[in-house]
Amino acid sequence: MSRKIKVAAAQVGAVDLGALKKDTVQRLIKLLHQAAEQKVQLVVYPECTLTTFFPRHFIQSQEELDKYFEHGEDITQSPDVKPLFDEAKAHDIDIVLGYAERTPDGMGYNTSVYFSGSTGKVLSKYRKVHLPGRVEPFEDPAATNQLEKRYFKPGNYGFQAFRAPGLVKDAVKKSTTTKADESTEGKGDPILGMLICNDRRWPEAWRVYTLQGAEILMFGYNTGGHMSHLWGGKSMAPEEAEKEALFHSRLVQQANSYMHACFSISAARCGLDDGKYHLIGGSSIVRSEGHVVAEAGTDGDELVAAEIDLAECRQGKERTFNYGKHRRVETYGLITGQTGVVEPELL
Amino acid sequence: MSRKIKVAAAQVGAVDLGALKKDTVQRLIKLLHQAAEQKVQLVVYPECTLTTFFPRHFIQSQEELDKYFEHGEDITQSPDVKPLFDEAKAHDIDIVLGYAERTPDGMGYNTSVYFSGSTGKVLSKYRKVHLPGRVEPFEDPAATNQLEKRYFKPGNYGFQAFRAPGLVKDAVKKSTTTKADESTEGKGDPILGMLICNDRRWPEAWRVYTLQGAEILMFGYNTGGHMSHLWGGKSMAPEEAEKEALFHSRLVQQANSYMHACFSISAARCGLDDGKYHLIGGSSIVRSEGHVVAEAGTDGDELVAAEIDLAECRQGKERTFNYGKHRRVETYGLITGQTGVVEPELL
Repeated sequence: MSRKIKVAAAQVGAVDLGALKKDTVQRLIKLLHQAAEQKVQLVVYPECTLTTFFPRHFIQSQEELDKYFEHGEDITQSPDVKPLFDEAKAHDIDIVLGYAERTPDGMGYNTSVYFSGSTGKVLSKYRKVHLPGRVEPFEDPAATNQLEKRYFKPGNYGFQAFRAPGLVKDAVKKSTTTKADESTEGKGDPILGMLICNDRRWPEAWRVYTLQGAEILMFGYNTGGHMSHLWGGKSMAPEEAEKEALFHSRLVQQANSYMHACFSISAARCGLDDGKYHLIGGSSIVRSEGHVVAEAGTDGDELVAAEIDLAECRQGKERTFNYGKHRRVETYGLITGQTGVVEPELL
Repeated sequence: MSRKIKVAAAQVGAVDLGALKKDTVQRLIKLLHQAAEQKVQLVVYPECTLTTFFPRHFIQSQEELDKYFEHGEDITQSPDVKPLFDEAKAHDIDIVLGYAERTPDGMGYNTSVYFSGSTGKVLSKYRKVHLPGRVEPFEDPAATNQLEKRYFKPGNYGFQAFRAPGLVKDAVKKSTTTKADESTEGKGDPILGMLICNDRRWPEAWRVYTLQGAEILMFGYNTGGHMSHLWGGKSMAPEEAEKEALFHSRLVQQANSYMHACFSISAARCGLDDGKYHLIGGSSIVRSEGHVVAEAGTDGDELVAAEIDLAECRQGKERTFNYGKHRRVETYGLITGQTGVVEPELL
């Protein structure tokens, strides 16, 4: 049987350093209303959606830094953000929201939650594992920093796939497809997983999720468009650097969707923050055979929606990428056995 | 300092079921001579280069099957193939050659050797780990089989990176680059690794090699172009299936080169074997940032050559994909801990 779901990436354009969270949340709600009109069941928002991407700034005041974080255990009760979750529940739409999390014991994480609109509950929380960037700021005060390793700890939940109830049942009701696909009958609710930004470049993350049967991976990102110092000091024109960043972002999403036989939904925080810090757009929905189903056409707030059929994953999961038949774990030891590179002895 | 090498993929077109190995070897020598004219230092030949891709056939006679294999420990002394290695030595060109190997104890492997032209020795041998296909033939006698799991054992050498002496030294002599790259000084000879065909779709293989610092991965392939039964019974026109196969082949090579920060050289056995079994071309050389440097324009015998600079790998290896700084092995346990999929409990 087909297992159709209508999903969307909610791309969010420029957010300046002084923007108020409650104003940004209103933009997110506007995108949610567009989703409701299009009968979308699942909306993915970007990484650190609620503020500008503050790790580009070297912030020395703890008080100032804390403004960019959500505090406490339950994001859905955060006063500025609660209206978004309330709307999601009212419209019976599941959402993924990325935000900077400060735990009660003072730890910072780059976090996403999966909120179920039908139950009004957070079904899963993910904390970014692959933090890019540096701990120490650049000496050049004009440089654009990437200080995620300073402000966040690596995620301590690992990659936990989870089932989202209700999504497929509704989709099947809406579906007019008659072709039977016995292989997916009785497989229950779809299996989902969350990544955040740089995680998408690490096939280990996709593999751990899909070893749990994940059918959709969802992630937001803040990816610099023309920060030339990130290109190893090579002289690259801003337009060229932006094209290169988009190329890599798309390449890893398409290839990992294919090699891990799952759909993926990516949502960009993008545009020109503070009139000068550029982040790429390119939010998209990609099929399990690696093809782009839908993609953003702008660098601003934009809903990118499509209906996908999870039954399509079976082709990859049961043939080319049938892990049980083809993987040879006895040859993979180094992947978990060592973190960094150990070169062969010099001859 | 720059570390330039001139490399090539030697694409090999149709080889029919009755073709004589010594005739095929003459075609390989012709490509080698083209390489010598272009001052190529390293030539990569396809998977199972010496015969038609026999795993598509259900061969019940052991005597007939044995004709497709090379027997004994040392391929360089095999009478039909020795002329190729002699020419490689005469021209001081390193070569990678894929062939079906029958060991003295009767085991079959899908194997590649790396032969050093300057020393006249086999520096490394690799046996394909990720065998696609089936053990049992299809019941439909008209179906095109993929019986690698019947004829070969999974490779028992793992993924052992190795250094190839002499390649870079020569390249540096030829180089006219003056810009210094201190990060690569004294790093010695280039670090290489071999994959075969389907291995290229498995990021685990690329990761194990690049955890050993591999700078170039080299592989041949025999990839069906329009064998519709491989597409899960979906109705796909032959031209569409061929386009899809090329898309996937290119996608995984580009993305894995980028995500593992290494160059890659791929060589196709391609064309229309026996006038009816189509294999895709698309032999190519891909940079460590994921861009195609050179690619085949035909489905026949063709040398695809380019000069590459291994210093380019440092960008990826030291920044975005600096394993030591960014990998989190404590979250990767399932990759080596389980072979197949274990789904979360049904809710």
